[in-house]
Amino acid sequence: MSGTRFDRRLSKILLHAAEVFYDKGYAGASMRDLSRASGMSLSGLYYYFESKEKLLYLIQKETFTTIVERLRERLDTASDPEQRIRIFILNHLEYFLVNRKAMKVLSHEDNTLTNGFGAEVAAIKRAYYQICVGLLDDFQRERKLEGSGRLAVLSLFGMMNWIYTWYNPRVDADAEEIAGRMGDIFLQGVSAAAPRRKSRKKKSVN
Amino acid sequence: MSGTRFDRRLSKILLHAAEVFYDKGYAGASMRDLSRASGMSLSGLYYYFESKEKLLYLIQKETFTTIVERLRERLDTASDPEQRIRIFILNHLEYFLVNRKAMKVLSHEDNTLTNGFGAEVAAIKRAYYQICVGLLDDFQRERKLEGSGRLAVLSLFGMMNWIYTWYNPRVDADAEEIAGRMGDIFLQGVSAAAPRRKSRKKKSVN
Repeated sequence: MSGTRFDRRLSKILLHAAEVFYDKGYAGASMRDLSRASGMSLSGLYYYFESKEKLLYLIQKETFTTIVERLRERLDTASDPEQRIRIFILNHLEYFLVNRKAMKVLSHEDNTLTNGFGAEVAAIKRAYYQICVGLLDDFQRERKLEGSGRLAVLSLFGMMNWIYTWYNPRVDADAEEIAGRMGDIFLQGVSAAAPRRKSRKKKSVN
Repeated sequence: MSGTRFDRRLSKILLHAAEVFYDKGYAGASMRDLSRASGMSLSGLYYYFESKEKLLYLIQKETFTTIVERLRERLDTASDPEQRIRIFILNHLEYFLVNRKAMKVLSHEDNTLTNGFGAEVAAIKRAYYQICVGLLDDFQRERKLEGSGRLAVLSLFGMMNWIYTWYNPRVDADAEEIAGRMGDIFLQGVSAAAPRRKSRKKKSVN
């Protein structure tokens, strides 16, 4: 799959497709809906994209490829482990606050793709997740903290990704401010959590 | 709507309906699918439930009503603000780890209901959200912390709700352990976040 380049036309069609999936859900959207929204003929759509599944695959692939590319560029500018986690959070939120429709589509159709498409997207996502685990590892090593990264990193993704359900640009702050506050919660949370674990009294609830 | 009681039959049908919505998405599921899965005739389903929308409404209403009832009982047993937040987290996770299909359906069909159904469910959810805001207020007051609750509470919901996308009972700990660790991250996160805000250097990223 070397040399795959999404030109403007493709990006635009994917944007329209993401909007249709956003409105109708993947299962509820038809190629006819996608053709209508993108202004491309139905036969053209089939010719270039083959199937609804292929379109979803391209949306997912473009999204994660873009996020990871931007992230790598930004990470090159910082060596402090805390700052690198803050960059990760800001990069993620900035992309998704601009592309909230894509964010919902990606969240909802997480397991929709099968076979090769699904495996390829899963691999890109796993690499993205692993970057975050690595950043947390570096942070914890520097601060001499213990604790497994899995739950912490997945909690962070939850904090960030859930935003598509509640973000209101008229009420809520911008990506930088939100990234700063989520970064505070997360970094302090994992900084203090590990040492406290052992001494935390197991109180029975209920 | 006084005296609404969900008997076992109803609960079972709702469980089947949640499974169908989980598998096919709300938009992709038909009353015929729901009839097949629940073992109720199509005409019976229309007679008792009127519409797919009504079924989704009942699933959402039963879920949140149950969670809030259990929560109130458990909160009656504790007065310590930290402990009460931990109860909230455990109650939420315990319910949803057992009912992960319902959790996905609720997340995905958050804005599907319209009119009266939607307004009623939204009111129950708002009340639930407000309980959490209140618990955080109490905690922050006791610890003399500042900071708006909205972003913190929505971050907590994100941490907890995202779990339906990743939880694997063969790998991950049980609800009590996960609730403990998320509680650590969240409580330490909000404890330290507020005072740190002002001194946080605004480094430009990128």
